[in-house]
Amino acid sequence: MKSIASYPDGLSRRVVLSTLAALSVVIGSLAPTTTWAQSPTDLLPSWNDGKAKQSIINFVTTVTKDGSPDFVPAPERIAVFDNDGTLWSELPMYNQLAFALDRVKALSNQHPEWKEKQPFKAALAGDLNGIAASGLKGMIELLMATHTGNTTEEFEQIVSDWLSTARHPKFNRPYTELVYIPMIELLEYLQANGFKTYIVSGGGVEFMRPWVEGVYEIPPEQVVGSYVKVNYEVRDGKPVLARLPEVNFIDDKAGKPVGIHYHIGRRPIAAFGNSDGDFEMLEWVTAGEGPRLGVIVHHDDAIREFAYDRQSHFGKLDRGLDEAPKRGWTLISMKKDWRRVFGSQ
Amino acid sequence: MKSIASYPDGLSRRVVLSTLAALSVVIGSLAPTTTWAQSPTDLLPSWNDGKAKQSIINFVTTVTKDGSPDFVPAPERIAVFDNDGTLWSELPMYNQLAFALDRVKALSNQHPEWKEKQPFKAALAGDLNGIAASGLKGMIELLMATHTGNTTEEFEQIVSDWLSTARHPKFNRPYTELVYIPMIELLEYLQANGFKTYIVSGGGVEFMRPWVEGVYEIPPEQVVGSYVKVNYEVRDGKPVLARLPEVNFIDDKAGKPVGIHYHIGRRPIAAFGNSDGDFEMLEWVTAGEGPRLGVIVHHDDAIREFAYDRQSHFGKLDRGLDEAPKRGWTLISMKKDWRRVFGSQ
Repeated sequence: MKSIASYPDGLSRRVVLSTLAALSVVIGSLAPTTTWAQSPTDLLPSWNDGKAKQSIINFVTTVTKDGSPDFVPAPERIAVFDNDGTLWSELPMYNQLAFALDRVKALSNQHPEWKEKQPFKAALAGDLNGIAASGLKGMIELLMATHTGNTTEEFEQIVSDWLSTARHPKFNRPYTELVYIPMIELLEYLQANGFKTYIVSGGGVEFMRPWVEGVYEIPPEQVVGSYVKVNYEVRDGKPVLARLPEVNFIDDKAGKPVGIHYHIGRRPIAAFGNSDGDFEMLEWVTAGEGPRLGVIVHHDDAIREFAYDRQSHFGKLDRGLDEAPKRGWTLISMKKDWRRVFGSQ
Repeated sequence: MKSIASYPDGLSRRVVLSTLAALSVVIGSLAPTTTWAQSPTDLLPSWNDGKAKQSIINFVTTVTKDGSPDFVPAPERIAVFDNDGTLWSELPMYNQLAFALDRVKALSNQHPEWKEKQPFKAALAGDLNGIAASGLKGMIELLMATHTGNTTEEFEQIVSDWLSTARHPKFNRPYTELVYIPMIELLEYLQANGFKTYIVSGGGVEFMRPWVEGVYEIPPEQVVGSYVKVNYEVRDGKPVLARLPEVNFIDDKAGKPVGIHYHIGRRPIAAFGNSDGDFEMLEWVTAGEGPRLGVIVHHDDAIREFAYDRQSHFGKLDRGLDEAPKRGWTLISMKKDWRRVFGSQ
């Protein structure tokens, strides 16, 4: 089991892993030692040996070792993952923004005024600088116009339909295939070791929930993110949740520890991010008592994906790069630490 | 295993049940049939035979029967429970209000002005009518003054300390012993059948999270409720979450389906409540497709607990009583359906 022959089609391996994981929970609860953590490297075949891989394995081995002073009981093994740039690609723009631009086009017939009105005019032209020029206010206007005015069930269908047809402009593949295989392996490795894995993203909760279970084996209830207000209404005797054009919570920067508190209610022991939007999340998680793991994915691979950090419009990584060493956070070099990035087509 | 000899001291039984439950998940995933659902009555020993018990067992048997057209995969077996009046007693007042009144007393030295100021004056006198006269605004003022101005970790400690010493005025027992044994059995029964059990309460999330795991085997992340805003701050290099005196979300009535959507993100298949505050939650859950279970605990047992419904200040049940039959919701008569109410002392 040295490599995943094809992902996301390699379902049989996932089924095997899930069954093994379920068994390991039982074995772990009956016997004082688990055999799982003793050969963990098999589970990370797409990682090159090095400091990054080793720091992750050391951490997991430590917290799962029964009898060790650093042992952490399974219910407290909470690991949080940023999504954009940490689990899947976020350039040339956040995928949710690509979704919004496609929605502007799809809805433009009903809104002839958009041809002359910013930020919609820029959106129709695919002009990111023009959208950026409209500021946060313009961006929120764009998101509200393209994401709300429907019910939660309608929006879920819209997202699923878009994902089934949209293609990434550089890689010409469905966005859900542009997840990082080493991170998928890491999620499986943590799940097999009794961790509960959460997404904690600046992106919209309802943009992620329709597909994360199939792609990451993370159920919808383990997704924390930004969200709009919804209202409960009974229409012709049928209850619905109507999505209102009003931002309810922005799960970014200092909002991430807050979102974690609202939704999870205890401090995770491991956090994975890639940008300064994740800084406070890593800070909060690694400031807790006992063993902690903070990890930053550094995008330094222009050949296989993208190379960006301090100057990027999306996924800017500046303070995190400066402070990772002194805070004991692990930096993953996508170029050096990952044997491969995406699954084979 | 016909009765729990002593609860909450009967820990060994809980350990046995948990282990059996974990095993049943594995057995269920490996073998096409489960043996668990075929003798479920053993798990509800504190329930008298009757329509209520039978409707619950029928539902669970149906959705867990592999191959049946009504089979529901385990990840979708989400069950939501109101807390006050559904899992533990809520009279003579919500326990969280009793906590608030005790907090007013504890903090009154720092607030000499409270002696003459409502609703604090009424709170110091234990005068519920006086508090009620101050309206929703007064109630929120009381809650903010007694619940906020601290960090999340400080508040958790305050709640834990209070619960370890406070006693219920009628039963003279710790509040956490005034949970309903038949409902504890029901939680275990559902958990053993692959259900993920959530609390969805009008009460404060942070008032519940410190103790629900020990009492209900429901982890903190499976608690949905009302909550205040928190702010992420770094104080002397140490990050904290400061609790602000500002209501963020009220998880009651039409807020319950909304809270379920924000936190869980999929519609549960079973809902348990006791008051009209749970009406919309039951409506939302039972309006979904496929088999659904809606259950209302009717407090009609003045001897062993309390008898109240349409006229009660706390836990008023009016519309739910009227509409339960035509909506196919199950009514539990505490008096007739429960062999016992609380654990022995």
